[in-house]
Amino acid sequence: MSITLAELARALDADVLGDTDVCITGLASLTSAKTGDLVFVESENNLATALASEASAVIAGDFACKVQASKSLLLCTHPRLAFAKAADLVLAGSSHMAQIHESAEIHLTAQLGLSVSVAANAVVGANAKIGEGTSIGEGCVIGEGVEIGTNSKLYPRVTIYPGTRLGDNVVVHAGAVLGSDGFGYVKDPAIGEYVKFPQIGALIIEGDVEIGANSTIDRGALDSTRIGRGTKIDNLVHIGHNVQVGHRVVIAAQTGISGSAIIEDDVVIAGQVGIADHVRIESGAILGAQSGIPTNKVIRGKGVVFWGTPARPIKEYLKQLAALTRLTRGKD
Amino acid sequence: MSITLAELARALDADVLGDTDVCITGLASLTSAKTGDLVFVESENNLATALASEASAVIAGDFACKVQASKSLLLCTHPRLAFAKAADLVLAGSSHMAQIHESAEIHLTAQLGLSVSVAANAVVGANAKIGEGTSIGEGCVIGEGVEIGTNSKLYPRVTIYPGTRLGDNVVVHAGAVLGSDGFGYVKDPAIGEYVKFPQIGALIIEGDVEIGANSTIDRGALDSTRIGRGTKIDNLVHIGHNVQVGHRVVIAAQTGISGSAIIEDDVVIAGQVGIADHVRIESGAILGAQSGIPTNKVIRGKGVVFWGTPARPIKEYLKQLAALTRLTRGKD
Amino acid sequence: MSITLAELARALDADVLGDTDVCITGLASLTSAKTGDLVFVESENNLATALASEASAVIAGDFACKVQASKSLLLCTHPRLAFAKAADLVLAGSSHMAQIHESAEIHLTAQLGLSVSVAANAVVGANAKIGEGTSIGEGCVIGEGVEIGTNSKLYPRVTIYPGTRLGDNVVVHAGAVLGSDGFGYVKDPAIGEYVKFPQIGALIIEGDVEIGANSTIDRGALDSTRIGRGTKIDNLVHIGHNVQVGHRVVIAAQTGISGSAIIEDDVVIAGQVGIADHVRIESGAILGAQSGIPTNKVIRGKGVVFWGTPARPIKEYLKQLAALTRLTRGKD
Repeated sequence: MSITLAELARALDADVLGDTDVCITGLASLTSAKTGDLVFVESENNLATALASEASAVIAGDFACKVQASKSLLLCTHPRLAFAKAADLVLAGSSHMAQIHESAEIHLTAQLGLSVSVAANAVVGANAKIGEGTSIGEGCVIGEGVEIGTNSKLYPRVTIYPGTRLGDNVVVHAGAVLGSDGFGYVKDPAIGEYVKFPQIGALIIEGDVEIGANSTIDRGALDSTRIGRGTKIDNLVHIGHNVQVGHRVVIAAQTGISGSAIIEDDVVIAGQVGIADHVRIESGAILGAQSGIPTNKVIRGKGVVFWGTPARPIKEYLKQLAALTRLTRGKD
Repeated sequence: MSITLAELARALDADVLGDTDVCITGLASLTSAKTGDLVFVESENNLATALASEASAVIAGDFACKVQASKSLLLCTHPRLAFAKAADLVLAGSSHMAQIHESAEIHLTAQLGLSVSVAANAVVGANAKIGEGTSIGEGCVIGEGVEIGTNSKLYPRVTIYPGTRLGDNVVVHAGAVLGSDGFGYVKDPAIGEYVKFPQIGALIIEGDVEIGANSTIDRGALDSTRIGRGTKIDNLVHIGHNVQVGHRVVIAAQTGISGSAIIEDDVVIAGQVGIADHVRIESGAILGAQSGIPTNKVIRGKGVVFWGTPARPIKEYLKQLAALTRLTRGKD
Repeated sequence: MSITLAELARALDADVLGDTDVCITGLASLTSAKTGDLVFVESENNLATALASEASAVIAGDFACKVQASKSLLLCTHPRLAFAKAADLVLAGSSHMAQIHESAEIHLTAQLGLSVSVAANAVVGANAKIGEGTSIGEGCVIGEGVEIGTNSKLYPRVTIYPGTRLGDNVVVHAGAVLGSDGFGYVKDPAIGEYVKFPQIGALIIEGDVEIGANSTIDRGALDSTRIGRGTKIDNLVHIGHNVQVGHRVVIAAQTGISGSAIIEDDVVIAGQVGIADHVRIESGAILGAQSGIPTNKVIRGKGVVFWGTPARPIKEYLKQLAALTRLTRGKD
């Protein structure tokens, strides 16, 4: 696919310095750019490198407005953001045609919207509903009655249990499991064995959510697990039953969230964080990597970074680390 | 499926207060209950809410015996346990008929018991034995010679390597990998490269075990890895080669157990715990979330909670945290 | 498959004490050995047990050279290494014949080398290239244009995204996802939502790499993620976009490596370690289990063990733990 700089500038509401007829066919980093590629720079320090690269055009901030440039510039307030948006336009043509592969097993009662793709060996269960423009990757298993919105994309080998609903523009990477049983048992004192507590609730994933490879999100026990609109989840993340995740939450790889925890809007959670059951992380808090939040705790502080186990404000944590270091001075 | 309160009371050995002809068709929480649903309350505090809900009947403790109730009550010593058992009865009818899907690839030499289900695109290898009433989900891969007991349930896309045996009533959630190679190499000093140590042992999973989505359990190197009867394993758990896990062990999400560790009966392991190789966790110990047990350690103390890395009794750990906090007072 | 001790001795450059015509048909531990099995001992302490076992032959160190043995001995400088190498020879015959299963979906434009196996329900995309002797397990999904070298082995249900290249002799265990999108977004201040940063780089996995079950390795954002020759990766490991991993790196289970980190040659990383973005771990460093390396840090020290979060040399960490313990003495 190819797009001219003039078209990109219009779409991004950016100014062009230089030739507006340049054709952009790809995106690249400063070190790998070739002819036809678009690159971006966020500070003046990298501008010379960008101009010396083989790229055909450079997205830059206002700092570049007076440069006598050897190649075309797109001037924007947020170069990284403009580059991300440009990617959508440049790469748009590379998506495949809607197609139902002959090896896909689609139940007679499943309802597929227009332009739905179902790839080889995928299975779509009874009464499932797949919205217009959604694509189901190779080997996916879509359980009975599952509903998926429009323009969503499931990469290969995603499993969705019955009782799960996905919104529009949801992206799920390979191997993710959505709607699996939560982890709940009751010990029977008469026999000393565990009896399974019913795990029959729903899993609701709202629109614009992205879920990483091999992540697992459990259905509710009796009520629902919910992932709010615009939330982004990395690889190998675990989210337990009844968890409520708000809007635009970011959850990095290998984090685990236990049952009935509440993660409010705009929380940022780094990698390998552990959140125990019934915790509440209030809006806008930031949890540092590997931090741990014990059962029933409430974490509040918009923009405050918490770290450690049990997690405390990072300033406090760093002071404690420093005190610990002082303690061992001269003790060899 | 529908069951009367009289039938439930008989099965649960409970007393009914009120109409015994009420039909129960589902289970729910206090907030989501509709007509036909059964709910439960464990304390008197929630009884009024339960009675005000739309539920058709309430499981409650003896505290409710004198209530002038507006709906039928089932009185039991352990309401949560009774509710869990009731779920089995109420939901029993919802399971599917035994069926071998035409797209399943079942080797000629595989032996399937009566009423075995094999779903679409599942693969059952040579000489595998699947016990009566067991169901194999979509896209599962059952390796050569694998044995699975009766009434077990494999959700979609489970992979079982050759050399693995599963008992009766085992449940394995989607994406789990059972019997993969352990992580063992020997460095060859002549060339400075790693040579793989043979990973040819078995994996034995006893009856009544449940294994969460995308968890991985490795086969033994030369001997066996073993998961004892009644043990429950959450999502994204890793269990290494030669590990011996006892009966009724509970292992929460994202915990990792390294090679040759021994976890005795009735141990409870919270989420994201790390257990190094050759550790022994003695019967009944409890490991708090994110705790870490270094190589060769023995953890003992029935009912004692351990926390931190390296894990110590929680009382000690909390004292140390408090001391650390005191150290930094007035140091701003 | 069967091999004589004489043949083994020749291949391993070892000396035989005793009968060289003994036939070896398997490998075992000291406790499980049966007739036909080979066992090994690394110290004199275990020699008597080995000789008393049912094994047909014993690999031992030079310490055994004067033993009046009741069974044949293979004498080597590195018994464990010799045993690992012997395993390759003894087990060599057990591999399957090359075969393309009729249910495999192989694109017309895919190029398969000689003796390539593709198992049931595997999918090989357009323009993929699979090298001679490589086997693709059941249900694997090999994306468009993926290249895999010779003699590699993919266990069932591996997913490889387009843009990924694997070298020769690579082993990938079940459920692993290679080349998935990295986790990168840009917040759009105008609407407060995340816009995806392009994740269109490559993933390059060099020869002799082994990757554990359900691990995930992301493609680069604009450039490449690279895993160097001879590196061994355990189960449920996450490796983010643009990460550069050197040669012979060992990464134990559940470790996570964030974007753009650099792991140099011969680094050893224990389980559940967290490495933040843009970290550099210099050649030969050793990271203890659960340790955490904060953003932008450089860890150096060949053979030095680091532990804790933030990771510090283990001697320092242990001193701090000891100081903390002293602080709480007599404070009950």
